[in-house]
Amino acid sequence: MRPSGRSVNEMRPISIETNVTKHAEGSCLIKVGDTHVLCTASLEARVPPFLKNTGLGWVTAEYGMLPRSTGSRMRREATTGKQGGRTVEIQRLIGRSLRAGVDRVALGERQITVDCDVIQADGGTRCASITGGWVALRLAVNQLMKAGDIISDPLVDPVAAVSCGIYAGQPVLDLDYPEDSEAGVDGNFVMTGTGKLIEVQMSAEGSTFTRDQMNALMDLADKGVGELVAAQNTAVGG
Amino acid sequence: MRPSGRSVNEMRPISIETNVTKHAEGSCLIKVGDTHVLCTASLEARVPPFLKNTGLGWVTAEYGMLPRSTGSRMRREATTGKQGGRTVEIQRLIGRSLRAGVDRVALGERQITVDCDVIQADGGTRCASITGGWVALRLAVNQLMKAGDIISDPLVDPVAAVSCGIYAGQPVLDLDYPEDSEAGVDGNFVMTGTGKLIEVQMSAEGSTFTRDQMNALMDLADKGVGELVAAQNTAVGG
Amino acid sequence: MRPSGRSVNEMRPISIETNVTKHAEGSCLIKVGDTHVLCTASLEARVPPFLKNTGLGWVTAEYGMLPRSTGSRMRREATTGKQGGRTVEIQRLIGRSLRAGVDRVALGERQITVDCDVIQADGGTRCASITGGWVALRLAVNQLMKAGDIISDPLVDPVAAVSCGIYAGQPVLDLDYPEDSEAGVDGNFVMTGTGKLIEVQMSAEGSTFTRDQMNALMDLADKGVGELVAAQNTAVGG
Amino acid sequence: MRPSGRSVNEMRPISIETNVTKHAEGSCLIKVGDTHVLCTASLEARVPPFLKNTGLGWVTAEYGMLPRSTGSRMRREATTGKQGGRTVEIQRLIGRSLRAGVDRVALGERQITVDCDVIQADGGTRCASITGGWVALRLAVNQLMKAGDIISDPLVDPVAAVSCGIYAGQPVLDLDYPEDSEAGVDGNFVMTGTGKLIEVQMSAEGSTFTRDQMNALMDLADKGVGELVAAQNTAVGG
Amino acid sequence: MRPSGRSVNEMRPISIETNVTKHAEGSCLIKVGDTHVLCTASLEARVPPFLKNTGLGWVTAEYGMLPRSTGSRMRREATTGKQGGRTVEIQRLIGRSLRAGVDRVALGERQITVDCDVIQADGGTRCASITGGWVALRLAVNQLMKAGDIISDPLVDPVAAVSCGIYAGQPVLDLDYPEDSEAGVDGNFVMTGTGKLIEVQMSAEGSTFTRDQMNALMDLADKGVGELVAAQNTAVGG
Amino acid sequence: MRPSGRSVNEMRPISIETNVTKHAEGSCLIKVGDTHVLCTASLEARVPPFLKNTGLGWVTAEYGMLPRSTGSRMRREATTGKQGGRTVEIQRLIGRSLRAGVDRVALGERQITVDCDVIQADGGTRCASITGGWVALRLAVNQLMKAGDIISDPLVDPVAAVSCGIYAGQPVLDLDYPEDSEAGVDGNFVMTGTGKLIEVQMSAEGSTFTRDQMNALMDLADKGVGELVAAQNTAVGG
Repeated sequence: MRPSGRSVNEMRPISIETNVTKHAEGSCLIKVGDTHVLCTASLEARVPPFLKNTGLGWVTAEYGMLPRSTGSRMRREATTGKQGGRTVEIQRLIGRSLRAGVDRVALGERQITVDCDVIQADGGTRCASITGGWVALRLAVNQLMKAGDIISDPLVDPVAAVSCGIYAGQPVLDLDYPEDSEAGVDGNFVMTGTGKLIEVQMSAEGSTFTRDQMNALMDLADKGVGELVAAQNTAVGG
Repeated sequence: MRPSGRSVNEMRPISIETNVTKHAEGSCLIKVGDTHVLCTASLEARVPPFLKNTGLGWVTAEYGMLPRSTGSRMRREATTGKQGGRTVEIQRLIGRSLRAGVDRVALGERQITVDCDVIQADGGTRCASITGGWVALRLAVNQLMKAGDIISDPLVDPVAAVSCGIYAGQPVLDLDYPEDSEAGVDGNFVMTGTGKLIEVQMSAEGSTFTRDQMNALMDLADKGVGELVAAQNTAVGG
Repeated sequence: MRPSGRSVNEMRPISIETNVTKHAEGSCLIKVGDTHVLCTASLEARVPPFLKNTGLGWVTAEYGMLPRSTGSRMRREATTGKQGGRTVEIQRLIGRSLRAGVDRVALGERQITVDCDVIQADGGTRCASITGGWVALRLAVNQLMKAGDIISDPLVDPVAAVSCGIYAGQPVLDLDYPEDSEAGVDGNFVMTGTGKLIEVQMSAEGSTFTRDQMNALMDLADKGVGELVAAQNTAVGG
Repeated sequence: MRPSGRSVNEMRPISIETNVTKHAEGSCLIKVGDTHVLCTASLEARVPPFLKNTGLGWVTAEYGMLPRSTGSRMRREATTGKQGGRTVEIQRLIGRSLRAGVDRVALGERQITVDCDVIQADGGTRCASITGGWVALRLAVNQLMKAGDIISDPLVDPVAAVSCGIYAGQPVLDLDYPEDSEAGVDGNFVMTGTGKLIEVQMSAEGSTFTRDQMNALMDLADKGVGELVAAQNTAVGG
Repeated sequence: MRPSGRSVNEMRPISIETNVTKHAEGSCLIKVGDTHVLCTASLEARVPPFLKNTGLGWVTAEYGMLPRSTGSRMRREATTGKQGGRTVEIQRLIGRSLRAGVDRVALGERQITVDCDVIQADGGTRCASITGGWVALRLAVNQLMKAGDIISDPLVDPVAAVSCGIYAGQPVLDLDYPEDSEAGVDGNFVMTGTGKLIEVQMSAEGSTFTRDQMNALMDLADKGVGELVAAQNTAVGG
Repeated sequence: MRPSGRSVNEMRPISIETNVTKHAEGSCLIKVGDTHVLCTASLEARVPPFLKNTGLGWVTAEYGMLPRSTGSRMRREATTGKQGGRTVEIQRLIGRSLRAGVDRVALGERQITVDCDVIQADGGTRCASITGGWVALRLAVNQLMKAGDIISDPLVDPVAAVSCGIYAGQPVLDLDYPEDSEAGVDGNFVMTGTGKLIEVQMSAEGSTFTRDQMNALMDLADKGVGELVAAQNTAVGG
């Protein structure tokens, strides 16, 4: 029934290649099916002004799509003069999601910026960005700990995300682009490795949904995030 | 326990004054406690390019805050050169939410723009904007129907929204600003008059939540939206 | 002869409601006929860089129109990426006009920003903004004096403004929108409560005028500003 | 008494050199004392959208200052990302002023853009721009008439402008920069060759003025504009 | 003598992997040492306005650097509101260079946009972009020819580029970042497969150079471009 | 053969008028044929942040064209919201070129900004800007030396520039606009008074060139720069 032939609760193949660029403190290339996102974590000594002298660290994120990551070429945001509304929404979500897994006291007064750049898009880029962004963050923090700059691990619980939706009347896990563009209802679920919720965003475009449907999607998300966290652990050798 | 002395499942006083400006096809001033939003609905003959010659209508929304709607003066977005990320996120949410209650075939190839301008802010401005925006939309559509421009009512189910959150460890309905700024978990719930879900956005800043907590918030939201829809009906004389 | 039936030297009804928002140090909603402007005065500790350590205060103004304050919806300036030329001209005029009534030594090194947001427009919005802006400023300064932060009153003479023009060949007072859009010559007159001039802007679009006509308009303005200052005094309980 | 040693009703030396650039349809370099402005008139076949198929022409103006036209270098507006408020105000004034002397029916459906670029500034740049802009416009229209593209002369009455102000307590004609920066009251007077008024802008920064003072300034302006129109006529060989 | 231990006329290892993204009509990942650039060619039916109905095609290029492609994180151009001067210069160079190898009549009225996004930077990113961009262009044109949309091959001569400079007093081929940041003189040489010159840009920052030095650099460039063209041919199976 | 009737190695008439504006520390109006550029040098006490406390000076340049410096009116860059790519390229070239002739230690920690504004364009505006910009710089530095602010002359070797190209199959010196718009190959050559090279930019739009052609153009440039440096020396009384 699904265009890809997957069963309703089946994730696309997940691959996470680490240390893919030589400059970043942490990096990975995450592939969830045909969605490929390059994630880098950059350590900076400075924190945003509102955190100066608080002893607290900060984790933030930026998101971008290469112009031809999509089926037809998109205009480059650098030439339009600003990031679009969708971009801003997504990068705020990534930042909030990652911070939910971080003990900012343990991190100390430093900032880590996670850049998520979509090389190839096939649905679920924001979820892949969160999942891959966590891996990049983990690797950068590992460096800090190895160097003795941080004593206690500030990463308290891994963070991963998956999208689910109602496709052809049926709840399905991990929407790809052909499904996403048809689904009347879809949601993004950000969760921790221990099954806690960080962010739930369910949305019906020109439609509505029931609490039963919502619960069915959350059950699927539970399963998917479990597999994603396992893949994260494997990637970082945990 | 709540700063306002309200019980946990108690809304703030709701007031909706209609037809508050002479130019707009529909308008209201909605007050949810000390949050005051002016909502206008403007009818335009044109639709966005992607809808030309489809026979489908469009409902969109814009959101703004007057510079001194808040405790300390905010910079005017017109002088910063762009709408901030929060503004863009909110106005996209308002537009999606209102469209979920609209039969765009019945509306026909015309656009209604709902402007929500916050006169005074005390928490929950996006929810008040959705609830008041629906009233402005209803009034504008009433004009179209009275004029015979539309035969069948395109507004299929009223749309309203409320925020809930975990404050001081307890799920509470309709967060005001003092609660909102303390709540570790909060959510916005957009629903229809018949209890269907349109959008659920739950978010934990630097924290997590469980499915039980989520369900408790949704129960509160159900109650709150019921009262908001009743207020909408009274306002439009329905 | 006038569309509204007013006599040539008759103002529209004036109403000034004070303290209309809970956050601003001073505020009013001024209505001059169907022109409604919300004016707030925001006190800030900082002054612009060029005034640091001079002991002098500053009063500045910003102006905006809600998108549907006008007969057909205007594009929101926050989405166009900048304030238009007309907006910039008007807010510079409001700021200059208000400052003319202020003793900046007595005010001391603090800034008051007056925001004038047009809720509904029917001609004369800049003049209503000046007149209402003065009331908001008066109320904010009253707070400062009550608190003992300022000893001697920095507001030396009330400031108000009115527009006049040649309509259908005849000088008329307080142009409303139908008159303003037809008048070949119009002017804005900013004056003090003791009849002194602050700013005179007379302009002929595609036309010219004589000194006799100019004097006739100034006589009308004298009368109008007198009535506006009386309304200001009543509003602030003076 | 005046820094320049001029008497109170004495203009600075006026010089208008015509046809100073080979590309423009009309051009001049106007010097009023040490204020030097290059004015060009560019003929374009198109009119703005609101004039299409009306048979009416349009005259518009743009204004700029070279970065080092002033005592200390100003930032180039092209690098700040927009024209400042002062620039916008001035170019709108120049455009309105020139149009007051033009019969737009006789001009026919074509646009003339007058660019006024300040090479060296010493006060009164907007007035010099109007006076010189008229000369450039006159020369461009002469070309059109010589070519037979226009039958009846659309330039009905020459337009010129001068500033006056209260300096050291005394009304003086044609403020230069040292006077302008000290004058508490100043005004710009745009008039026609036959003595009619087009625009009067009087402004008191942190001060006020009386009708008697206003009349004194207008008498001075009358005299100054007469001399400017004579210089225009000489320049265009009229 | 060179930091990398290379001899003066030795290129870094060159690798060109083709068809690296599924959406673009042509694509490659080019690696010249540690400089990695993702190049995609996007075919579009439209041409720029100035080419409409001329029968001529267009090839253009855009260039970007991922924020952490460099040693320390750069600000994302989409958030700064514009492409910087260096970016604009580079993408104009890439576009001009590629067009020099294209018969725009044979291409016909279609546009190919080559996007060059730097994944990892270590000097010479503009030259790698040209060399890799040509491969992406070649692959996209191959598709057009296979589909029969183009009869005669519009790509007349392969285009490649290399940088050379005076490092530690000695002319060296293919500057890497440590060399580039020290070289007082450097140049970019764009050439064709048959040894013709397309663009020569030699520049001395705070220094000068002689014609003899220039000739030495050109000899090195000749050698380097020969090796790059061989690698292009291998990559496209030519 | 050349449209102007010049022989292939003949410059256009060169004229350099100095001290043309009263405010700038150095200035000239350079005319190379019908290309007229106003160059001013502005001395500023501050240096860019990256040079603070280094003891080094800075020379930078900005470039602009008046809207009607060209055959048809160009849009003013201040109204388009940014400097175009061509402008940015040119002003970076001017700045680099001038710095090559400056001993920044001898200049000391001060900045000189050279503004080059094209009054009338007929090809070769960037070269005329460099040549005239050097004269403005020379005059500003002379002031500094006369005042004793600088002991040793920081201007080590005069800098001038000329364009050459292949026109109608033949290498020609100093392209004017009719030649420039037809030439398939053109180059800009920046050199010092002692014949050293600073910048060579040769470019073929939709074409290629050989090393022999390149050498022929460089020989022409040598001759042209010699004449330009002589004109500079005469202008500054050297």
